[in-house]
Amino acid sequence: MRTLYHHPIHALSRTARVMLAEKGLPFEPVVERPWERRTDFLKLNPAAEVPVLVEEDGTVVAGGLAVIEYLEEAYPDTPLLPREIAARAEVRRVADWFLHKFEREVAENLVGEKLIKRLSGQGHPFAPAIRAGLANVTYHLDYIAFLSERRPWLAGSSFTLADIAAAAQLSCLDYIDNVPWDRSPEAKDWYARIKSRPSFRALLADNITGCPPPKHYADLDF
Amino acid sequence: MRTLYHHPIHALSRTARVMLAEKGLPFEPVVERPWERRTDFLKLNPAAEVPVLVEEDGTVVAGGLAVIEYLEEAYPDTPLLPREIAARAEVRRVADWFLHKFEREVAENLVGEKLIKRLSGQGHPFAPAIRAGLANVTYHLDYIAFLSERRPWLAGSSFTLADIAAAAQLSCLDYIDNVPWDRSPEAKDWYARIKSRPSFRALLADNITGCPPPKHYADLDF
Repeated sequence: MRTLYHHPIHALSRTARVMLAEKGLPFEPVVERPWERRTDFLKLNPAAEVPVLVEEDGTVVAGGLAVIEYLEEAYPDTPLLPREIAARAEVRRVADWFLHKFEREVAENLVGEKLIKRLSGQGHPFAPAIRAGLANVTYHLDYIAFLSERRPWLAGSSFTLADIAAAAQLSCLDYIDNVPWDRSPEAKDWYARIKSRPSFRALLADNITGCPPPKHYADLDF
Repeated sequence: MRTLYHHPIHALSRTARVMLAEKGLPFEPVVERPWERRTDFLKLNPAAEVPVLVEEDGTVVAGGLAVIEYLEEAYPDTPLLPREIAARAEVRRVADWFLHKFEREVAENLVGEKLIKRLSGQGHPFAPAIRAGLANVTYHLDYIAFLSERRPWLAGSSFTLADIAAAAQLSCLDYIDNVPWDRSPEAKDWYARIKSRPSFRALLADNITGCPPPKHYADLDF
């Protein structure tokens, strides 16, 4: 059986899970706490980062960027990037925005400080980081609204990796109830469309012992 | 003319420059200081990040990930990723290691603190960050040595994006004379092979006013 080592509240892991589900590829999810630096996990990925995909034939695909591009190359049916080269670049631009810029400006400051530090026993949240994260999230929501007003989906006319990456980040943030949905009806509407996709169901069922999500997290009518 | 907006001491920009040169694609390099948030540059990339490639037909490719994958897709002659899908995943794993893990653990702490802060007028270097960067660089060099002992190039039998990404980072660090080359003859030998490639020449000629590189920076026999 194909195996995905992942962490439930981690955007690149969530991106991989949704891609696998969209492509109809069955897999066994294995929760990995990368901060434990488990020896057998380091053998799969010496960078000690999730996600890591292990195919049935033993092929190991390690790290977020490698997994994303591998899934698209190895399983091109149900494409999550468009065909046209310039359109693919636009998808990667928006995906990169959320997987790296949003990660640095919002996720590390909020999900990292509030949840991951607690789970990994790395000390207390750093208040200035949290303030920065809360200030930054609003302009990222505004950017989603800006894109949503101009296009059916974030990177163009079809649902792509860009939507998956952005929703993966937003869903982690929503898990700790830090998305000010009232700020942006357009972003909320876009996220509601993603939430209702079957590929998103497993994410909405995530529940970390001792850190449950807020009630609206799994609610399709939030 | 094809235009590349880049910053000389920035690994993703350097990766793009070397890829363009390896593929024999002429371009006009335009130095961008992204921290200035120039209005016309923000129109090209609202993330305010280099590199941005503008093709002669006006196609804009914004951001490191988008530019890298675009160049490979649009100009597949002189491939910088292998053909086989699992081998491509290995190249992306190693490239991701250097473009993100090395960036976070080493480059931000050294190039960011010592050079970029000075160029952008963002205050003084933070001593604990510099100490962390200097400690971290040694294990990254060890990893290059580890890979070099097992394979002709970092991700396998051919020169790929993985080598370009790693050399892009090392060369930025070498510009501020923070690579302990004596630590690792294997890493030094690998870097010497890259340095002698014609595609690397323009990088070795970089010279920022007021912040010149050390003498050995451009020396092929360093």
